Amino acid sequence: MSIDHVCIVGGTHGNELTGIYLTKSWQKCPAAVSRESFSTATYLANPVAAKENVRYIEADLNRQFSLASLHSKPTSYEQKRAQEINQELGPKGNASTDFILDLHTTTANMGVTLSLSCDSPFHRRLVAHIKSSVPDAHIIFEPREKNEDYFLMSVADYSGLLIEVGPTAQGILRHDTFDLSAKISLLALDFIEKYNSGEKIELPKLVEAYQFVEKVEFPKDENGDRSGYIHDAIQDKDYEPIMHDQPLFFDLQRKVITYQGESGLCPVFVNEAAYYDQNHAFSLMRKVALEIP
Amino acid sequence: MSIDHVCIVGGTHGNELTGIYLTKSWQKCPAAVSRESFSTATYLANPVAAKENVRYIEADLNRQFSLASLHSKPTSYEQKRAQEINQELGPKGNASTDFILDLHTTTANMGVTLSLSCDSPFHRRLVAHIKSSVPDAHIIFEPREKNEDYFLMSVADYSGLLIEVGPTAQGILRHDTFDLSAKISLLALDFIEKYNSGEKIELPKLVEAYQFVEKVEFPKDENGDRSGYIHDAIQDKDYEPIMHDQPLFFDLQRKVITYQGESGLCPVFVNEAAYYDQNHAFSLMRKVALEIP
Repeated sequence: MSIDHVCIVGGTHGNELTGIYLTKSWQKCPAAVSRESFSTATYLANPVAAKENVRYIEADLNRQFSLASLHSKPTSYEQKRAQEINQELGPKGNASTDFILDLHTTTANMGVTLSLSCDSPFHRRLVAHIKSSVPDAHIIFEPREKNEDYFLMSVADYSGLLIEVGPTAQGILRHDTFDLSAKISLLALDFIEKYNSGEKIELPKLVEAYQFVEKVEFPKDENGDRSGYIHDAIQDKDYEPIMHDQPLFFDLQRKVITYQGESGLCPVFVNEAAYYDQNHAFSLMRKVALEIP
Repeated sequence: MSIDHVCIVGGTHGNELTGIYLTKSWQKCPAAVSRESFSTATYLANPVAAKENVRYIEADLNRQFSLASLHSKPTSYEQKRAQEINQELGPKGNASTDFILDLHTTTANMGVTLSLSCDSPFHRRLVAHIKSSVPDAHIIFEPREKNEDYFLMSVADYSGLLIEVGPTAQGILRHDTFDLSAKISLLALDFIEKYNSGEKIELPKLVEAYQFVEKVEFPKDENGDRSGYIHDAIQDKDYEPIMHDQPLFFDLQRKVITYQGESGLCPVFVNEAAYYDQNHAFSLMRKVALEIP
């Protein structure tokens, strides 16, 4: 396997400005992202949502790329847009693009998160390499069967890397998020260059990663309306293990609601604005040791 | 003057959830905001925008309350909504409501900001009283002629107090913003209660306040597109004086753009998401000493 065509994608979510402006900056200055052994393109995934400054028009674009969804009659603007993207960057299964870097931000205090939806020695070594340069980076490892994978990056032949940086409010650029997203992107490109050239990179045998366990909802009142907010015991504490009986929420009268579950799981996407429409307060993840081949 | 009818307003901007949920919590538990000498109502200003989780549908509701705007044929959903609010809480000039607390949040690191668009000994003493309990609170003092005043609170006979708390991303509740907004609201109600009873409150002779000087725009490229972002020298540094020649922005190639203006002015609403559509990076304010009668 050799990676010949890389595409850096911004604006998969239209109100996550960092990726949109980073791809714009690299369009003006392609030298920053060009490497000897592969071509690097930049791509704005949802320009209509970006113009409206919304995550999406009708449906989350980053859930529209399963093979079945790419081949059925579209029922939303984003499903249609996914099919166009599949024409331009894919088609999935035999694509013109080998690898996608998909740039995201979160309102949660997650720092750098490297998210993989595909497993191979290359992908594991890629995230291990980035983590060796940025030790605070967290890895979410959630491999899915390629045809089932609904992420945009799954249209590329070797899928890609989803880079998530936060906390950043929706609809703004922050210097720290911008610079960190750029740094991680360049580390990924440098790794691909070394991989293509066959250069040996020393990496640890194991790195820490996280796997999804379950979503946790905000409390609701008798009418089904959201009736609480995140307790300070977990606000801004993404990736810190939580314990049975510890506080999770306040209700609107400031009564504390505690966690009644397995100790040691770690919350992520804590108080992510994009998940309020699903009443989704955070996800719980299990820490695992990822073997690096 | 005695204040008989107070109204606490949330959701003037539909994606600033703190005020929406605080008013909801006080509807369920009115005792927290009821006082002997006046009635306290709660009011959701823009339920349609709140449902859509957007600041506004067509126009900023908090710019629609000049007397002229309240009496012309509406050209936007929010102008129409302002006229309904004027029926329910006003009418401006001879209102059923004496005083409005209008609850806002900002993505800028402004802590607590107390914003007055009306001047009187009562208003000055109110903000001085709150600041004596919360010394980090900042006061923005921008009195306007009542008929010209376009803020929602101007429909009440004695206008009101706009409480702005941040940083908070749009579309989320944060415990710290929620609690601080509640605290400031209760301090305001307590002050009104003391004022109505004629209780003497010791206050300093002068308090620090800020007055608007000018808006500063993000840099633009040759096509008029935003082409830079806030420098770390001012990001999160609302209310800290800036100096001639200091860094303000990075352009997309990380070239630093410096400040060429009067030293000592203070930026506020630095990187406020709601102002990106106007390409407005921050406002510059002048620190003044406000006499407390």
